[in-house]
Amino acid sequence: MNSQPIGVFDSGVGGLSVLRHLVRILPDEEYIYLGDTARVPYGNKSEETIVEYTEQAVRFLLHKGAKLIVIACNTASALALYQAEAMSPVPIIGMIIPASRAAVQATQNGKIGVIGTRATMKSNAYPLTIQEISEPRTMIVFSNACPLFVPLAEEGFHHHPASELIAAEYLAGFHTAGVDTLVLGCTHYPLLATLIAHELPGVQLIDCGEYAAFEAERILSHERTDRVSQAESAPRIDFYLTDTTTTFLEIAERFLGFSVSLPERVSLEHYDYTSASHYE
Amino acid sequence: MNSQPIGVFDSGVGGLSVLRHLVRILPDEEYIYLGDTARVPYGNKSEETIVEYTEQAVRFLLHKGAKLIVIACNTASALALYQAEAMSPVPIIGMIIPASRAAVQATQNGKIGVIGTRATMKSNAYPLTIQEISEPRTMIVFSNACPLFVPLAEEGFHHHPASELIAAEYLAGFHTAGVDTLVLGCTHYPLLATLIAHELPGVQLIDCGEYAAFEAERILSHERTDRVSQAESAPRIDFYLTDTTTTFLEIAERFLGFSVSLPERVSLEHYDYTSASHYE
Repeated sequence: MNSQPIGVFDSGVGGLSVLRHLVRILPDEEYIYLGDTARVPYGNKSEETIVEYTEQAVRFLLHKGAKLIVIACNTASALALYQAEAMSPVPIIGMIIPASRAAVQATQNGKIGVIGTRATMKSNAYPLTIQEISEPRTMIVFSNACPLFVPLAEEGFHHHPASELIAAEYLAGFHTAGVDTLVLGCTHYPLLATLIAHELPGVQLIDCGEYAAFEAERILSHERTDRVSQAESAPRIDFYLTDTTTTFLEIAERFLGFSVSLPERVSLEHYDYTSASHYE
Repeated sequence: MNSQPIGVFDSGVGGLSVLRHLVRILPDEEYIYLGDTARVPYGNKSEETIVEYTEQAVRFLLHKGAKLIVIACNTASALALYQAEAMSPVPIIGMIIPASRAAVQATQNGKIGVIGTRATMKSNAYPLTIQEISEPRTMIVFSNACPLFVPLAEEGFHHHPASELIAAEYLAGFHTAGVDTLVLGCTHYPLLATLIAHELPGVQLIDCGEYAAFEAERILSHERTDRVSQAESAPRIDFYLTDTTTTFLEIAERFLGFSVSLPERVSLEHYDYTSASHYE
């Protein structure tokens, strides 16, 4: 096993839901988690800015020796995956392709719903990818941006009546459309899975982090394992954040189920194009 | 009249509610509005990061020739006002002091409520400032962070039943405490004033932007005017944003009531300490 770490990048803390699946499926790997918490959220930013920030993040993770990079943020995956791949000598896994593949395999009636941030939805990355994967079979993809789901999840309003009202409004169209599969196209949304399932009973929910983790396993040629980690201690994860807040440790433990090391604060602007020589 | 512009800085679009009052009260001035839309919101960031970003913004506005700077963001005002003043040769107006003065003047029973972001509330800037201003009279200040109000306001959920439920929860304590005055300690909150007033009938709401504009007028020694602007055309405002999104023009027109010029995208990292010589 190559002892270099797997790099996991997210705009903030949402990617911890992806890291959780990675640690479960690949428990003996080492990880670097980079959260751009100073500039979170990406979901309402322009394409230009999202590409720039993602490239900075990828460069940072390469500089730290990542052997594989998971872009654990749907918005960055939707808008900057190809740019990230173009600059990276190591494999890049985004959220969109593994989740789209899972949705195409899961659907019976060919009607797939997708929810995510405004930027992810506007990119049409999911409908385009789903269509490409399902050919020659044609899928009907319905999508809706749910921008309030991120703050509701971060504020712990997982089962609040206000969240139920907002979820009912955001999701009503999927019920009408008769989708049988819904991609949770934002890494925060698994926190609201119970709420979403309540609004759309019988609809299969696709957690993109889980399928991205399977993709990482495939690339690294491990055998899939559902057994408990053979590692004797908690997995080794180094956390880097562009802003450190007092709530991070608490949130991380809630997401991951174990205590984590103190994050280190870093500035990504320093890892710009001109520092490419660091790892080349 | 000094023809240099008034600089207005906010983490995003919320400061437009302050700019609206400035334009109404000082219609013949020219303005530069800087929104750090690439890194918005500030409300959950660390003090260190908020100070750094505010200093960059002040430096940018000084570089653009501002004769007076309004920090139209409560979070930045609460955490970085003194640092901004220390580096600026021109006057700086924050949100906290004018609003605190207005609240002390408005209250009859000496019980003042304050709402704002988590960072503003944690700083205790409002209670400390209110106490300092009201001495020797003692005020009782109740405060509560309302982090979901910003996304609800930005998503246009001003009169939504979900917003009513959340407002009821956030504001219940003020009702119990018997406050007669409530400071809307975040520039987004005036958009939710109807909702907030409905939850707290009879409570006087303090819109910090209005009192900051009066303070600007006092410093610039204009006479207060409530009459319609004598300017023949819309006021001259140059907009600079660290990220340009398609929704900005629409939001700006909604806040201001008139069409605005296209914003220019700028990067604030370039206006760091070493570029002080630009204006000194």
